[in-house]
Amino acid sequence: MTTYLIGLDYGSESARGVLVEVESGRQVAHHVHPYRYGIMTRSLPDGTPLPPDFALQNAEDYTEAAFEILSRLGRGRTVEGIGLGFTASSPLPARADGVPLSRLYPEAPHAYVKLWKHNAQAYADTINARPGPFLANFGGRVSGEWLLAKAAQIAAEAPALWAETDRFIEGGDWLAWQLTGREARGLGFAAYKAQFSAATGYPQDVVADLDRRLATPLPVGSPAGALSPQWRDLTGIEGEAIVAVAVIDSHVMLPAIGGVTPGAFVGALGTSAAYLYLSDVYRPLPPGIEGVAFDGSMRQLWCYEAGQPSFGDTLAWFVRTFPRGADREESFRAYNAEAAELAPAAGRLVALDWLGGNRVPYADGALSGLLAGLTRETTAAEIYLALMESLCFGARAIHDLFPAGGLPAERVLMASGLARANPLLIQIMADVLDHPVEVPEIANATAVGAAIHGAVAAGTVATYAEGAERFGARSVGQVSPRAAHARRYQVAYDIYRDLAGREHVRAALRALRGLETGPVV
Amino acid sequence: MTTYLIGLDYGSESARGVLVEVESGRQVAHHVHPYRYGIMTRSLPDGTPLPPDFALQNAEDYTEAAFEILSRLGRGRTVEGIGLGFTASSPLPARADGVPLSRLYPEAPHAYVKLWKHNAQAYADTINARPGPFLANFGGRVSGEWLLAKAAQIAAEAPALWAETDRFIEGGDWLAWQLTGREARGLGFAAYKAQFSAATGYPQDVVADLDRRLATPLPVGSPAGALSPQWRDLTGIEGEAIVAVAVIDSHVMLPAIGGVTPGAFVGALGTSAAYLYLSDVYRPLPPGIEGVAFDGSMRQLWCYEAGQPSFGDTLAWFVRTFPRGADREESFRAYNAEAAELAPAAGRLVALDWLGGNRVPYADGALSGLLAGLTRETTAAEIYLALMESLCFGARAIHDLFPAGGLPAERVLMASGLARANPLLIQIMADVLDHPVEVPEIANATAVGAAIHGAVAAGTVATYAEGAERFGARSVGQVSPRAAHARRYQVAYDIYRDLAGREHVRAALRALRGLETGPVV
Repeated sequence: MTTYLIGLDYGSESARGVLVEVESGRQVAHHVHPYRYGIMTRSLPDGTPLPPDFALQNAEDYTEAAFEILSRLGRGRTVEGIGLGFTASSPLPARADGVPLSRLYPEAPHAYVKLWKHNAQAYADTINARPGPFLANFGGRVSGEWLLAKAAQIAAEAPALWAETDRFIEGGDWLAWQLTGREARGLGFAAYKAQFSAATGYPQDVVADLDRRLATPLPVGSPAGALSPQWRDLTGIEGEAIVAVAVIDSHVMLPAIGGVTPGAFVGALGTSAAYLYLSDVYRPLPPGIEGVAFDGSMRQLWCYEAGQPSFGDTLAWFVRTFPRGADREESFRAYNAEAAELAPAAGRLVALDWLGGNRVPYADGALSGLLAGLTRETTAAEIYLALMESLCFGARAIHDLFPAGGLPAERVLMASGLARANPLLIQIMADVLDHPVEVPEIANATAVGAAIHGAVAAGTVATYAEGAERFGARSVGQVSPRAAHARRYQVAYDIYRDLAGREHVRAALRALRGLETGPVV
Repeated sequence: MTTYLIGLDYGSESARGVLVEVESGRQVAHHVHPYRYGIMTRSLPDGTPLPPDFALQNAEDYTEAAFEILSRLGRGRTVEGIGLGFTASSPLPARADGVPLSRLYPEAPHAYVKLWKHNAQAYADTINARPGPFLANFGGRVSGEWLLAKAAQIAAEAPALWAETDRFIEGGDWLAWQLTGREARGLGFAAYKAQFSAATGYPQDVVADLDRRLATPLPVGSPAGALSPQWRDLTGIEGEAIVAVAVIDSHVMLPAIGGVTPGAFVGALGTSAAYLYLSDVYRPLPPGIEGVAFDGSMRQLWCYEAGQPSFGDTLAWFVRTFPRGADREESFRAYNAEAAELAPAAGRLVALDWLGGNRVPYADGALSGLLAGLTRETTAAEIYLALMESLCFGARAIHDLFPAGGLPAERVLMASGLARANPLLIQIMADVLDHPVEVPEIANATAVGAAIHGAVAAGTVATYAEGAERFGARSVGQVSPRAAHARRYQVAYDIYRDLAGREHVRAALRALRGLETGPVV
């Protein structure tokens, strides 16, 4: 009998699913479902305006997408396992029966999902002012994007709503709960986004009564449960259909791209960028790296995490703001074609890649981007190139932190659609890192990674290594650094490091965030 | 008998002339003549490529423009005086008989006029490494744009050509020589651009044998001589037609806009910006100000000079690089319309206005522009606004140096076509300076100012004040600062000052200029 796996990849704008045939290991279908409500930054569906720095989602979008994707891919098919990658930290308040509070209070901003990029920096600052030992593995501070800060924000700004919040839960865990009827949380979310540790549990005394709204998480690859009868009816899926606990989207693709072994430095390049480093030994967190946890990404491995809040988003911003063609794709083609002809740092420009703030090493969402070196001869393509280079400089700043902490990268892998769509960016990455970059050739890597998690949870495979072998990328592109380019980038990178490293520069960028910019009265 | 004055304004791209009727004081005609060769930055007319940082002109452009303008405006008319404003420092090497060496050596880059923006920074650096007392009134250093650095460059890079250089002369002085048959140099050029002082002459021992290629200058308003018989024949001009010694273009407009009294702070806003402060008492040069001289701008007044190398050029660069319409005017209209709706620093951006380097207070052509505060929400109009604001911040940084040196500005005047074409810019200037700005309403101010110099030289008027009264602006717009805007700009300006004032930031910008950007081999 032909059996299948389904992998689900819940991104910021849409959800994507792939159907993988177990016997052949091939992807045989995929489907993308854009969210109806998308990212809400200005107003709620009913028109209620939102404060600045809000970025919300409607949990109903997640179940609607699950219904569409699972029924299109699974109807009438025997499914062994389902896996689930999800943005994080994107928590929502829910009732004990799983009903999201936004269904009960559709006019209340704090009742909705706080998408990863929703930034509660002020609450993070308060938590960080009295750091506890639970932050040892998280750089001594929480981010405004993480669960603790978001919980503190609701507790402070919407106390009545917080009182009605029985469960405060990541969107991915909530969705697994909806699909199986059982609340089972993923250890990755709990560790990286809520500072859970197996030894000491969740941090205490940070947000009052938060603990009872959470739950002890399960290692990745654990079954959350079988797809519920109700969802079987809805989607027409047959077979056991074991749903794995949800996994952070940037981590879930590891087995799909062969990132299952110690010493791998893996970049997941998307709208933002996440960098994961796998190790079978524990080392104290290298200064500047965001977090490390065990069993939260790959089984029985420590996974160090770091990232850039704005990566592909930065280039998308540029081509949207300064278009060069009829649409986004045409603009990207035009800029990439022109940039490909330019020498390194051709405009004598260096940018700081902080258009979405900085996570590593400063953990400061109030930082912003900077472009230095403008002259009256600067061209648009030179600025575009400088932004691409700045993304790679930011990646290198992260990459270089690991060897300093006794964690040398043996392999560098770069994954995601962006890595495949923009070969120039990957070449610059290899030049800037002065290290060969492997680009696993696989479509829908995140969703396939999720499918492999489903396979592990269902027992289809015994290990992630086996899952990677059977269902992951079959070929890997190798991009080698160009020595002369690498030498020039070293000089430009030194200037980047110098600008980024100056407290005065960062203080000025922070001061800019404090400028009053409302209408003048 | 109806008599006339003619004022000539030699800019970077074209020359402009106005015909002023003496009795009525009115402009009755004007003519603009674009240069045939314009600004040569990439190659000579014969195709010889030019090194970076070269910006040359062909002196033949000046005489061709003079012929076109004088004959169109003056033929058959009785002209009392002709005045002449000219870019500076734009010197050329010539033979003792006035023949420019470019006519003899058309293939030699160093034989051409070095336009003001041609930057011989390396030679300025050498001179500044051993500063002499002649620099006391010039901030202790020469600029790479000034005559001494340009002379040093020819002497070093083209010694054979330098040996044949009998006269090294500003383009304006050379043109007055051509028109009158008499070499008579203007004191403004000599003082501000070649550090001449009445007491000690030109600096000695800076460039070998430079002195014998120069000449003792005459105060502004001195007659260079009458228009020569040859030029009378050529142009059909009648009357005595006394030609005044040439004047720096940014200074020559002072009498046309009423800038003839002590305490006036006058901005001449064009592609670059010059700021002049008039005083009847001498004070030691306030630190950061570029220079001070007596009799070089207005008779019997000290005139302090400072400037921004890139002003209108910066906005022109932006709309050229990121167009918003079919042509430059449409783009400017679109950006100005959008920017006018924005609050101060609406994008939480602050820029450094150094796209052409910085003259005040750092006198460093190797600096470049910087844009801080970029996010994924930044709009093109917000960047445009930030650039406009940066130009005003740069102006304020200059403005504020004077009171610190005991030279308080009683009036602030802003002149030039840009001031009239871009009222938003002037409003922002008033807000940033938190001081009323007078905008004299007169077309062709520079050329009219030149005509008034001609009137003084010819004795048509006894004083510049009389010339201003009879031929200058008849009405003056008053732009008042908006208090709430001024308060917000104070906060943004503090960030500008902080970024600009950091040696580390400037070091990074300088380091960028040193990046190798040629083809990778």
